[in-house]
Amino acid sequence: MTDARDSFLEGMSRSAASVSVVTTDGPGGRGGVTVSSMTSVSADPPTMLVCINCDARSSSRILENDNFCINLLREGQTELSDVFAALSDPPGGDKFAVGEWTKGESGAPILQTALVTFDCRLTDSHHSGSHFIFVGEVLKTTVADGKPLIYGSRSYGFPQYHTE
Amino acid sequence: MTDARDSFLEGMSRSAASVSVVTTDGPGGRGGVTVSSMTSVSADPPTMLVCINCDARSSSRILENDNFCINLLREGQTELSDVFAALSDPPGGDKFAVGEWTKGESGAPILQTALVTFDCRLTDSHHSGSHFIFVGEVLKTTVADGKPLIYGSRSYGFPQYHTE
Repeated sequence: MTDARDSFLEGMSRSAASVSVVTTDGPGGRGGVTVSSMTSVSADPPTMLVCINCDARSSSRILENDNFCINLLREGQTELSDVFAALSDPPGGDKFAVGEWTKGESGAPILQTALVTFDCRLTDSHHSGSHFIFVGEVLKTTVADGKPLIYGSRSYGFPQYHTE
Repeated sequence: MTDARDSFLEGMSRSAASVSVVTTDGPGGRGGVTVSSMTSVSADPPTMLVCINCDARSSSRILENDNFCINLLREGQTELSDVFAALSDPPGGDKFAVGEWTKGESGAPILQTALVTFDCRLTDSHHSGSHFIFVGEVLKTTVADGKPLIYGSRSYGFPQYHTE
């Protein structure tokens, strides 16, 4: 492969990452989008980041609402992932009709059945190429038992650990 | 768990992420460190980011060298991961004695046996809490066949895909 963009995309496809639905709510409206570009930044203070395309409606909403929640999906929650990735149509056209949601301290929707939720106050945003890097301070984390849903090699999957 | 930092760390431990050795070389010296806080940012132009503790020597070296390479490890390359995470001692005290290395276009060391390498020119750095967010434009990507090494639930592992 000689094209830099193609080889970059091929390289990224070989990686594997946890899948999250990133949500927001407030004056800018409610929104949510599936992302795999998510990582922790710092534990002091607890800080996370997500990268979202500038053209996604969720990006303008996060900027206006000053909040986002990273809802880490469980192994098996592929329907939620597909709906928020706009790969399948939600019932009645409402993505939030899939899953059970409450409101977090930040104002963002919290998925009750998520593996982990990181409710964040937006503290910084950086424009980089076609995407925004959104940085948030974690106000509250909820943790459940189970394995994360992961995506890699253009397929869903789950982690198999050496200790199992 | 009532402490915000503890619940954050527990939440992050439930996630699963690909493991990389991030390297740099130049006027600031050669260095490398194992990270799981890595993600793609944008495909236009191809852009990646990594988060590294401000106190890590690799951070000051990356800032001085203006380059880094993300060497995505393969399933099974736990020795390389442990050595660059300072969890095990390298032969003769030289971490780069483990693995075969060449120099990339950016000047950073490239691991010949990596699953994927993203050779980057540092384009931006953001300070956030205890960490730097290093953003780099990908100059060249190399891709090999295989599965990534992943880390989650305080254990190494590999992805099991639904399509297998």
